[in-house]
Amino acid sequence: MSRIAYVNGQYELMGAASVHIEDRGYQFADGVYEVCEIRGAKIVDFTKHMTRLQRSLRELRIAMPMALASLKIVVQEVVRRNRVRNGIVYLQVSRGVSRRDHAFPTHPVSPSVVVTARSINPQKGSDTAARGIKVITQPENRWPRVDIKSVSLLPNVLAKQAAKEQGAGEAWFVDRDGFVTEGSSTNAWIVTSDNRVITRSAETGILAGITRAVLIDVLAAMQLKLEERPFTPAEAAQAKEAFVTASSQIVMPVIAIDDKLIGDGKPGVMAKRLREEFHRFAEFV
Amino acid sequence: MSRIAYVNGQYELMGAASVHIEDRGYQFADGVYEVCEIRGAKIVDFTKHMTRLQRSLRELRIAMPMALASLKIVVQEVVRRNRVRNGIVYLQVSRGVSRRDHAFPTHPVSPSVVVTARSINPQKGSDTAARGIKVITQPENRWPRVDIKSVSLLPNVLAKQAAKEQGAGEAWFVDRDGFVTEGSSTNAWIVTSDNRVITRSAETGILAGITRAVLIDVLAAMQLKLEERPFTPAEAAQAKEAFVTASSQIVMPVIAIDDKLIGDGKPGVMAKRLREEFHRFAEFV
Repeated sequence: MSRIAYVNGQYELMGAASVHIEDRGYQFADGVYEVCEIRGAKIVDFTKHMTRLQRSLRELRIAMPMALASLKIVVQEVVRRNRVRNGIVYLQVSRGVSRRDHAFPTHPVSPSVVVTARSINPQKGSDTAARGIKVITQPENRWPRVDIKSVSLLPNVLAKQAAKEQGAGEAWFVDRDGFVTEGSSTNAWIVTSDNRVITRSAETGILAGITRAVLIDVLAAMQLKLEERPFTPAEAAQAKEAFVTASSQIVMPVIAIDDKLIGDGKPGVMAKRLREEFHRFAEFV
Repeated sequence: MSRIAYVNGQYELMGAASVHIEDRGYQFADGVYEVCEIRGAKIVDFTKHMTRLQRSLRELRIAMPMALASLKIVVQEVVRRNRVRNGIVYLQVSRGVSRRDHAFPTHPVSPSVVVTARSINPQKGSDTAARGIKVITQPENRWPRVDIKSVSLLPNVLAKQAAKEQGAGEAWFVDRDGFVTEGSSTNAWIVTSDNRVITRSAETGILAGITRAVLIDVLAAMQLKLEERPFTPAEAAQAKEAFVTASSQIVMPVIAIDDKLIGDGKPGVMAKRLREEFHRFAEFV
């Protein structure tokens, strides 16, 4: 089946889906995005993703392209038309099309909206989770506004590529004080020997991950101990377990950091358990 | 006359010129660009711009989309088809179209190429130069790889917008040591009371501007004193003159920084002279 994308009011065949060359998303990375998991043909934590989208747009003073209820229908329709039962839906909003000039357009422009969806075999994620992934560290070199989920992702691209070339599944950025901020497309977590779960506070240096937020609810419900504080790669290497979270990866065990094995070098018990429990606490629409 | 753009092998009407929604330039800011001045229907310093383009591409490991000689023909053709005598030509190259994934595509993809051109009335620039522009300062918040002329320009967009809202024409970024790096789309210069011309070395924290490089040749030819070193906003406020350089602005006098007048608050003699002399030292193709 051909894939279908929603682009600025139209459902289009993926191969023909395009945006104008003067879309500010293309010329200035002047746009934001969200990725939601699809599970059983339902969108996971849609409301939370849309709340974050609206915040990102507000921070950049880009208007919501349509009412939230309409956007929800569009996203659901893209999922339906692509017959995605398990996979992801991607939503991008840019400031719109305008003659190239750094400053915001002075005439009213409509934000551009692109929505795509694709199936991912859940077995693939399960298989990866059963093995766990390695992470490498990279100097934090992103701009400070990583709280805005913008498409200004070139540093993330280069970090992820570096990880891949070293046989790792993710790169963790390390700030100038020596602490891990987050991964190139994930939040970073460790588990201490006494089963405290550690992740950096969303106040500084990271994007407030939706999977991260839901997992914090999971921990509370399971009466597990959470500490929101930064940690170093050295502490991670000595930790009992480590894992990353993202909408597309749920909870993904990390078995090594910069080739130093974490724990026994196998996916941890806590990570496995959190991965299994996660969807009991997620919202489905 | 309708404007014409070159997009991936085709000359298209501007209104219909588009790129795929999964172009990595759109989803990841994974692309680079150049802007050249057009003067008397000739492209100014094309060779230098292409040398820098190739360097940017190399740093990101994006292939040159075509031979340099072919690219030159395309750029000249876009200028010709748009009948631009005075204005700018914009060239963007992205890594190409591939299913969304942060890491580089694993299958071979062709880089995307977009070229546009437009006329700008030279009187407009002259009028602005006769008045001079104000600059504001903004904390440097771009990633360190500003030596790559990438489309990851969201911080530049926000800085330029802040300038505009404060009645200024440019924002100068100030690094954590308190020194000016460069403008959101220009290089920054001051002139001391004894007529030394100061600009930050292209080694650190700035893009190696082409207009900047040519202006250094101009200074040498005119036996004027150049110092490549950082300066603070305070030194700029006390300077005899200040100005910015960019392909689209040539030499543009700066008359105030954060509302503190520079010199007598009028365009400086040196800036005016350099603006007049500039094109004697530029290359035209």
